Amino acid sequence: MSIETVLHMNTGNGESSYATNSYLQEYGIQRALHVTNEAINRMCNDLGGFPGVFKIADLGCSSGPNALLGISNIISRVHDMCKENNFEVPQFQVFLNDLIENDFNILFRSLPTFYAKLKNAEGDHCSPCFVSAVPGSFYSRLFPNKSIHLFLSSYAVHWLSQVPQGLENNKHNIYMAKTSPTNVFEAYRKQYEKDFTKFLRLRSQETIRGGRIVFTIPGRSISDPTSEDCCIIWELLAKSLVDMVKEGRIPESDIDSFNIPYYTPYEDEVRDVIKKEGSFLLDNLYSFALDWEPYNGGNAKMDVADRPIRGKNTAKLIRAVMEPMMATHFGNSIMDMVFNKFEEHVVHHLSAREGRNFNLVISLTKH
Amino acid sequence: MSIETVLHMNTGNGESSYATNSYLQEYGIQRALHVTNEAINRMCNDLGGFPGVFKIADLGCSSGPNALLGISNIISRVHDMCKENNFEVPQFQVFLNDLIENDFNILFRSLPTFYAKLKNAEGDHCSPCFVSAVPGSFYSRLFPNKSIHLFLSSYAVHWLSQVPQGLENNKHNIYMAKTSPTNVFEAYRKQYEKDFTKFLRLRSQETIRGGRIVFTIPGRSISDPTSEDCCIIWELLAKSLVDMVKEGRIPESDIDSFNIPYYTPYEDEVRDVIKKEGSFLLDNLYSFALDWEPYNGGNAKMDVADRPIRGKNTAKLIRAVMEPMMATHFGNSIMDMVFNKFEEHVVHHLSAREGRNFNLVISLTKH
Repeated sequence: MSIETVLHMNTGNGESSYATNSYLQEYGIQRALHVTNEAINRMCNDLGGFPGVFKIADLGCSSGPNALLGISNIISRVHDMCKENNFEVPQFQVFLNDLIENDFNILFRSLPTFYAKLKNAEGDHCSPCFVSAVPGSFYSRLFPNKSIHLFLSSYAVHWLSQVPQGLENNKHNIYMAKTSPTNVFEAYRKQYEKDFTKFLRLRSQETIRGGRIVFTIPGRSISDPTSEDCCIIWELLAKSLVDMVKEGRIPESDIDSFNIPYYTPYEDEVRDVIKKEGSFLLDNLYSFALDWEPYNGGNAKMDVADRPIRGKNTAKLIRAVMEPMMATHFGNSIMDMVFNKFEEHVVHHLSAREGRNFNLVISLTKH
Repeated sequence: MSIETVLHMNTGNGESSYATNSYLQEYGIQRALHVTNEAINRMCNDLGGFPGVFKIADLGCSSGPNALLGISNIISRVHDMCKENNFEVPQFQVFLNDLIENDFNILFRSLPTFYAKLKNAEGDHCSPCFVSAVPGSFYSRLFPNKSIHLFLSSYAVHWLSQVPQGLENNKHNIYMAKTSPTNVFEAYRKQYEKDFTKFLRLRSQETIRGGRIVFTIPGRSISDPTSEDCCIIWELLAKSLVDMVKEGRIPESDIDSFNIPYYTPYEDEVRDVIKKEGSFLLDNLYSFALDWEPYNGGNAKMDVADRPIRGKNTAKLIRAVMEPMMATHFGNSIMDMVFNKFEEHVVHHLSAREGRNFNLVISLTKH
């Protein structure tokens, strides 16, 4: 089974859908805004204004309320800058990219609202914006040579092109974990270096000189690959699957043969690949932490009474992202049970400590 | 109810889907190929080769096997020409357009096969092709200024932007018919002139100088708007609805308030609008007739024994195109009955005479 056919968020807009359970990513996008804005400012300064048609691509847009959030911000920022500097506002050509199995139909149905909001926000000065979709993997070429000014990506580039090879001994784990043998860390790191290098090489062919890439990914705050802020959530999910094995609902071999094609790099790993690949200059690497379930915008102190609801919500957030892949491997019928167990484990975890993700925002300029 | 939400072909790939019932359109596309090829030849001569990125848009692509047929032909023709003339093959950027409610998910799932066939056909010389989708009405702007080299459209531009106004007295008809009052013909003609003028004006902004539009539509062979080759099929469908009224299954007012937002122009009407609008030169206007159900590639003489199967297939072809719009107006529950009646009327009609569509292929150059 190719990753491209199972790596997509839960479709539709029902209770378990990604559209309904993507507010963690929304907070992340909001926290990354200033980095994107700075990239636009610098690009505008470098180019002495904007091109007649400003071409923007969002890689791994998914569907749901976040799909056009980053794009809306860019368009609004460009309008503001043009007003401030008395520049002519460019036309916008927007390319929304995701894998072929993404629910593009749902995404397209949100376009009339997007266009209406744009017009409402920018009024008579609103410049035309033309949105299109480009289905395919960002580990392949997606655009003609030198055709994009600004690439944007939120919570997508951490997905690998494949599960690393040689993880057979990663027993009772589904990602890098405290109990993983060292070859597992090595296999994940190698796959990440290979994939991220390829990603940069492909984008360097598609980006105009002076163009930008700004992307946000989950990462880890320390060099240690078992860092709690990147691994513990998957250890809890693995624990739920081990529960299923103990109850005789799935064979042990099913969990041992499942590993997430995903990597949460430490910032030095990101820097190293960018430097080695050589097509882009690193302008900014900004990091921030977010609660697993950023209740009240991530600003509220967690109260004991909130733990069950936070556990429930965290389980839903992870389910929205992981269910298509897990259902293909473990079977649809046990998904409810797995995620109920998972919810219990999350609540238990939160009773002893906080649950936090670590995030990286990376801003690059094409030489 | 806006036309844009109901004007789409039957989705999916089941028995009643457009994907399964679009071979009439396929024959039409094949018959129009030489006009497209001639347009590409001339454009290449005018421009002294091809641009680095050749940008092609298919307007009203729908989904199903035809969606990429015209595009495949263009790419193959360009490769051949480059081989013959020792030109460098351009990269291709393809934009597939249809209304927002079109089934783009199904369309995207056909892309891997499309890319594989391309590579197979062109071998090592195959130039990269980047396919994207642009949802929206072609009665609005879809692309940035001067950004498309070649527009293609097969069986789409005959759809109007709305049902013409003032058709209240078009009793027991759903389109122009022998029994329609004269104001009905006038209202349809005016709406067509208005819409086609707008279509050309919008495309003229989006087309590069020297760029081309090639489109195929059903039309009529004579000036008389009740010409049998454009109207009789809808008279038979109206008859089926009148049967429903007689059986008390739908109120008479339902049929009287339903008219198809569609126009089958006579070639002089097409010429007049192009001339008046003024942005394009008419290079070619080619016409051909096709059997309703082009059994055996349209080459076979109809045999009496074939009538029932031809009636069945014709009913399916029309159902695939009309069901979403009709189900919204008349209700889902009577669709089977309506199209069973329709099949009977088609078989009866074919017992007395042939059923043929008249088609126009129009090739334009941007001044």
